[in-house]
Amino acid sequence: MARKFYNAAQKSANPAKGILLYGKHPVFQAIANPNRIFHQVFATADVAPEVKSLLGKAGRDASLLKIVERKEFDKLFPKEAVHQGVAASVEPLEAVALEDVIAQTEQTDNARILILDQVTDPQNVGAIIRSCAAFSVSALVVQDKNSPQESGTMAKASAGTIEFLPICRVTNLSRAIDALKKAGFWCLGLDGYAEVTLDKANKSGKIALIMGSEGKGMRRLVEENCDQTVKLVMNPKVESLNVSTAAAIALYEFSKF
Amino acid sequence: MARKFYNAAQKSANPAKGILLYGKHPVFQAIANPNRIFHQVFATADVAPEVKSLLGKAGRDASLLKIVERKEFDKLFPKEAVHQGVAASVEPLEAVALEDVIAQTEQTDNARILILDQVTDPQNVGAIIRSCAAFSVSALVVQDKNSPQESGTMAKASAGTIEFLPICRVTNLSRAIDALKKAGFWCLGLDGYAEVTLDKANKSGKIALIMGSEGKGMRRLVEENCDQTVKLVMNPKVESLNVSTAAAIALYEFSKF
Repeated sequence: MARKFYNAAQKSANPAKGILLYGKHPVFQAIANPNRIFHQVFATADVAPEVKSLLGKAGRDASLLKIVERKEFDKLFPKEAVHQGVAASVEPLEAVALEDVIAQTEQTDNARILILDQVTDPQNVGAIIRSCAAFSVSALVVQDKNSPQESGTMAKASAGTIEFLPICRVTNLSRAIDALKKAGFWCLGLDGYAEVTLDKANKSGKIALIMGSEGKGMRRLVEENCDQTVKLVMNPKVESLNVSTAAAIALYEFSKF
Repeated sequence: MARKFYNAAQKSANPAKGILLYGKHPVFQAIANPNRIFHQVFATADVAPEVKSLLGKAGRDASLLKIVERKEFDKLFPKEAVHQGVAASVEPLEAVALEDVIAQTEQTDNARILILDQVTDPQNVGAIIRSCAAFSVSALVVQDKNSPQESGTMAKASAGTIEFLPICRVTNLSRAIDALKKAGFWCLGLDGYAEVTLDKANKSGKIALIMGSEGKGMRRLVEENCDQTVKLVMNPKVESLNVSTAAAIALYEFSKF
């Protein structure tokens, strides 16, 4: 039964590309996002009225909603997935072109961009998206090849903020950094071995912050392309922070100007 | 078989209190912690030499180590639990008395303490422990009744830093805040509706930072007991940050003095 529901959910989406969002924040924010293409919304009877009202407000067809029993949800999702009785089969969002981000930030004196080098865990990427949205980052840039595709897990970890954060998937990060430099962005790499501390870094003007994966950090070529590297000061007994925690702190620091 | 292994792991611990740590950071840090009582360490053959050497360095008995096949591990732990071929059945750590923390910080002019009000997710508490350790917080204070007990998940999320962060489990948070005030701590609550922003708050002297759960925030009585409340400024489109992210940012801000 759960399998059948899941298959139906998957089939109603483009089988090659469709994804399954779950949880109130991700699904409700997606409904409100005019750029999100829906195939179907699944909800338990108690959540259905709220979903119906949101679909109406967003000018979406009420027939998208299909009421499903809670036990079907519980069977479909792993125990730790907090689905809250609502899921949706949708198309992934379109990636944004870096040139468009550059054009859109031309007049924004203090624009912030975050670049991730090989952060592969969808939960971390989702949490980072949430922090980007919280600190008004203009776009997140990732390398297409080494970054997780959009997924229900990522949308959930982003608490639905994935719906309004522009994400650029580029082929070559060093080339993206070059383009950002030309557009006036100061490219700052976060690196535990840097000499300058985060709070002492220049915070005015356009800044692109570059972070590598936990443990491995940025790749050498990416790091060499940075204008400067900065570090987060912490107790030497602690090896590192989780990459999404470090990103949140850095974005917070650079949101003050 | 997995069940048998798990039962053995549980039985070798005190059945009422034993917990199962997993992953390299949690188990290796626990081995190095003289206050951690071990019942058994389980490792795959490839990880065993490293475990043996660490047991030796810590002056622990090599017979604690039991070599287990990888498939037993894979069966025992859920897929998303990164056990890295090592687990240990141990006694939970002893909680620390608040009076002892107060006595130990008497001479520390800029001591920091974090108080959590009803943060119930062990993963969040573990991540918060990691940030406390990274930013040299003297102790974490939680309400015994509404906080998760120590667990493998919590130790994993703390990346093993749970081994050296003093944790106080108190019966009454308001009374703990009163005791900290008397000991010269400025008690600052983090609240989205506060007027003062985090970066404008006084950062000198001893500070106890108080945070509530995501969504619900601090309970009213706890909040009323704070000397002051401060807020984290963010994009109003984003309702909130994850509690562990917000805690990391606040602890970072208060680590600068």
